[in-house]
Amino acid sequence: MDYEAVFAGQLDGLREAGNYRVFAEIERRAGQFPRAKRWTEEGQVEDVTVWCSNDYLGMGQHPKVLAAMHETLDRCGAGAGGTRNISGTNHQHVLLEAELADLHGKEAALIFTSGYVSNWAALSTLASRLPDCVVLSDALNHASMIEGIRHSRAECKRWRHNDVAHLDELLSQVAPGRAKLVAFESVYSMDGDIAPIAEILDVCEKHGALTYIDEVHAVGLYGPRGGGVAEREGLMDRIDVIEGTLGKAFGVMGGYITASKNLCDFVRSFASGFIFSTALPPAVAAGAAASIRHLKQSQIERVRHQNRVAIVRQRLDALGIPHLPNPSHIIPVMVGDAHHAKMISDWLMANHGIYVQPINYPTVPMGTERLRITPSPVHTDGDIDRLVTALSEIWSQCALARQAIAA
Amino acid sequence: MDYEAVFAGQLDGLREAGNYRVFAEIERRAGQFPRAKRWTEEGQVEDVTVWCSNDYLGMGQHPKVLAAMHETLDRCGAGAGGTRNISGTNHQHVLLEAELADLHGKEAALIFTSGYVSNWAALSTLASRLPDCVVLSDALNHASMIEGIRHSRAECKRWRHNDVAHLDELLSQVAPGRAKLVAFESVYSMDGDIAPIAEILDVCEKHGALTYIDEVHAVGLYGPRGGGVAEREGLMDRIDVIEGTLGKAFGVMGGYITASKNLCDFVRSFASGFIFSTALPPAVAAGAAASIRHLKQSQIERVRHQNRVAIVRQRLDALGIPHLPNPSHIIPVMVGDAHHAKMISDWLMANHGIYVQPINYPTVPMGTERLRITPSPVHTDGDIDRLVTALSEIWSQCALARQAIAA
Repeated sequence: MDYEAVFAGQLDGLREAGNYRVFAEIERRAGQFPRAKRWTEEGQVEDVTVWCSNDYLGMGQHPKVLAAMHETLDRCGAGAGGTRNISGTNHQHVLLEAELADLHGKEAALIFTSGYVSNWAALSTLASRLPDCVVLSDALNHASMIEGIRHSRAECKRWRHNDVAHLDELLSQVAPGRAKLVAFESVYSMDGDIAPIAEILDVCEKHGALTYIDEVHAVGLYGPRGGGVAEREGLMDRIDVIEGTLGKAFGVMGGYITASKNLCDFVRSFASGFIFSTALPPAVAAGAAASIRHLKQSQIERVRHQNRVAIVRQRLDALGIPHLPNPSHIIPVMVGDAHHAKMISDWLMANHGIYVQPINYPTVPMGTERLRITPSPVHTDGDIDRLVTALSEIWSQCALARQAIAA
Repeated sequence: MDYEAVFAGQLDGLREAGNYRVFAEIERRAGQFPRAKRWTEEGQVEDVTVWCSNDYLGMGQHPKVLAAMHETLDRCGAGAGGTRNISGTNHQHVLLEAELADLHGKEAALIFTSGYVSNWAALSTLASRLPDCVVLSDALNHASMIEGIRHSRAECKRWRHNDVAHLDELLSQVAPGRAKLVAFESVYSMDGDIAPIAEILDVCEKHGALTYIDEVHAVGLYGPRGGGVAEREGLMDRIDVIEGTLGKAFGVMGGYITASKNLCDFVRSFASGFIFSTALPPAVAAGAAASIRHLKQSQIERVRHQNRVAIVRQRLDALGIPHLPNPSHIIPVMVGDAHHAKMISDWLMANHGIYVQPINYPTVPMGTERLRITPSPVHTDGDIDRLVTALSEIWSQCALARQAIAA
């Protein structure tokens, strides 16, 4: 078999569909976020303003985070030295897990090398080892959750996105005595909508289901201590597993779950993706812990974040640039075509030094391609001016549809 | 269902079998490897010498590695800021991938958040997307490879460990026209044996199979530039995919594959575990690249590593402490019982400040529990003295079997 031809053929298919991804090569500048250097395909270096980062609060340049990482690097070295079981559990991992358990008011926490791995490993372990388990998965759950559930080979029923009545109906059909695991997110990354958590929990409690929430796009950002939407709504103690990330609002890297001591110990003891991975570098763990600690106390970042988001929305509304309405910090400017979204993104980069990555399949369904804008506390009024002016210009040039302009 | 009782019950099962894992909590001291602080369960802090690290060469404390990480942390901040596609591709990732492609003489490389994810994502993507693929997997392949193959749902045939005739026989049974993917390791982590790579490649070429080698326990350690066993044996250009880690001999964190441009692009474009993970922190990428660059030039670490391994083996032989003979740097001291292995490990820690983690199921088959000793260039003659004296003492105390003592 000509394997190279198979690879080339499938890549050509992506190109034809407009779904071939070209990664923008950048270098963020600590202290100057959202500014970055960008390497063009011709090898030139240009200045850009990043408008699509998931370092939502700019914590990746926070002096406390950097100081903790520098200090730990000097004291402990670069890597962890092994898996958690074989010489890789460093003091910093233990401290970070305590910080996370406290953040979510849980008995324990367990860290992973990424949010993807935390979802994949925790869900696959729970679903495969709970007796005769049925998983009830929100239809728009993240790829990492879907792959974890799939890997477990447990029966999976998908409930219509955020449709609590449908979840109730599906749970009613499950034979009594079977384990039931309900998995959903708080903030959905691509549409920015938020789950009706309290109603979901009511239904789960009625049916005796174990609940698992992914708060990766919410931790650090919502709740008085950055515990996420469930903290803001006073619901953390009703949820069995709260999963989050250290790589978005906390600005570093890694994923985690928090839950009861036994549940965390269960995943720790049986999850292949946890057991067989080298632990996070101690400096990464220390940086994440510093970030969490800071955001438990400080409201400045969250307040300014919401303020920036509101202003970008108002300005887009005033110009009729269509974006999905939602109650979160994510602003999806809808384009609806892969080629078109990429063209607009390229134009913004080339003409205005504005970097907004086009989002295409498989991250979003085909036909819903978009520019996903993530304002952050580090964006100035001037940055916002330049963004909306440029978007308006390309909307006019391409005669793109505008929505009714807000009064 | 009482979920807590299910978790507690399965954990009790582990405890009864002696397979419940207690993580030693340590803090490595940069500049003083293999010395570390250890937190006891009572909260005391003691000094220990680590004898089971996978930071095989001590590169995690190398000044070049630490300098690159400090410098990048100051310049670029803590995290990458996004997935590779969405604002997360930093210049340091591109440089690291070029360094890795060069290390293995391949057109391209692709980095992942861990070696586990690199195996899981690459194998599951190749096996699920190649037409009607059959995977031929060595019987002792690592959990990450097994899980990746399992996740692909492709047909999988296991060939007896390192048995080339059996591989040939199984390949002969595959219908012509089907894609064939042969996956194996160079150095097997727990037994320390090395695959007959040339013979495997002969068979694969005869049958037109795609070849995938895991060199995580070999990169940095073998070959004139640290390219692994395949480099040492002049075989890199005959292997389609060389997979490795940045978290063991290179001392930092992360995993990678190197292969043709199209193959890497294929995995980049279709692998869920790659697409949906936040990229490695730029400082981690820069530290890994510095480590690789250093080990391409420097032989000192590899020479002293082999010297330390040889001396530990000689000393164990002289005392009749049984260890698996193998041609690698891994010294498995066989115990054969989970409770016993843990007891010896606890005794070494408590009485001699020597940390060697007991290795139990599922990392090794039940009944083959062991102490896995990994000498490194940072272990002194005095360290070796203390280790073998302590082992001899406990062997006598417990009246453990000795092997025939070497002359």
